Amino acid sequence: MKVLFATSNKGKLEEAKAVLSKYGIEVEMLNKKKLELQSDSIEEIAKHSALELFKEVKTPLITEDSALSIKALNGFPGPYSAYVFKTIGNKGILKLMENKQNRESVFKAAVFFCSSNIQKCFVGAAKGKIALKERGRFGFGFDPIFIPDECPKKTFGEMPIEEKSLYSHRGKAMVKFAKWYIKNYKEEFNR
Amino acid sequence: MKVLFATSNKGKLEEAKAVLSKYGIEVEMLNKKKLELQSDSIEEIAKHSALELFKEVKTPLITEDSALSIKALNGFPGPYSAYVFKTIGNKGILKLMENKQNRESVFKAAVFFCSSNIQKCFVGAAKGKIALKERGRFGFGFDPIFIPDECPKKTFGEMPIEEKSLYSHRGKAMVKFAKWYIKNYKEEFNR
Repeated sequence: MKVLFATSNKGKLEEAKAVLSKYGIEVEMLNKKKLELQSDSIEEIAKHSALELFKEVKTPLITEDSALSIKALNGFPGPYSAYVFKTIGNKGILKLMENKQNRESVFKAAVFFCSSNIQKCFVGAAKGKIALKERGRFGFGFDPIFIPDECPKKTFGEMPIEEKSLYSHRGKAMVKFAKWYIKNYKEEFNR
Repeated sequence: MKVLFATSNKGKLEEAKAVLSKYGIEVEMLNKKKLELQSDSIEEIAKHSALELFKEVKTPLITEDSALSIKALNGFPGPYSAYVFKTIGNKGILKLMENKQNRESVFKAAVFFCSSNIQKCFVGAAKGKIALKERGRFGFGFDPIFIPDECPKKTFGEMPIEEKSLYSHRGKAMVKFAKWYIKNYKEEFNR
């Protein structure tokens, strides 16, 4: 069983593989420039990309979009996490969080599946805290400054992929997708 | 002579009116939710919105997108200025700029015109510096922290619309559009 995952982010690809392989799902990467929407909703962004790409490649596929929202910063950096990371990075976030007592934040991921007759969204969330400094070298993006409440001694940056996927927004969304996929698509996609 | 301006931002509408009225162009607001692209290019964002909206309303129209790019922050906040303003605001930008010697920045605007047979983009830019604190109550968004090099004693927030439009990215892009529009569309749009 296979699925096409439209992403240009190798970190996301590796995480998808780590989760989906456990369900016997092989992941193929579709590294195609996609038009991403500006929206406060990651579900909308993932859906729009999936629909646009499906029109082009005409093969069932998944897209994924994720966002880190920090309570004390009114939800910033939100769905524009990739751009914010590229420009001000973790150091910028830590600067904005200086002297902030409330360090609550949430990471959300939306995995969107699109085929000719099915459109379905799977979401996952991880609540956590923004660390006081960067810790760890695993993962990508904001991983070194995010401490999940479910494993409050480590940042995502201190966890190998397998461990991070147990607690992460993306891991949870991918598990939901995998369970649905093997149930509904076993026959059709078993090549 | 009229033009339809697709925006939900009243500040932008007022600025467009201030400039275009001088050229005898009346501005009508089209306040319609538009799908905005995630892109580092404001030209692309404005174009995509214009094309999508034109498909819907089938009337010639303009869209506008703008971005503030701060050199010391690798271009942040860039094309996601509206979202960044809504979340961390001018105070967040000033926080990120603490102790930064280089305060150079540039405001860019892209005005995109779309009709059934013409697609044309007009860009304007204003170089300037990020102020040390917020100054002024005019305008919107990052106006109170942006000091244009062409008038280095005031922030945009300290300038009434007419004055700001002389120096602003949006004013310059709108002037380019106006000159082209009255030359090329006088006949067609004179109702």
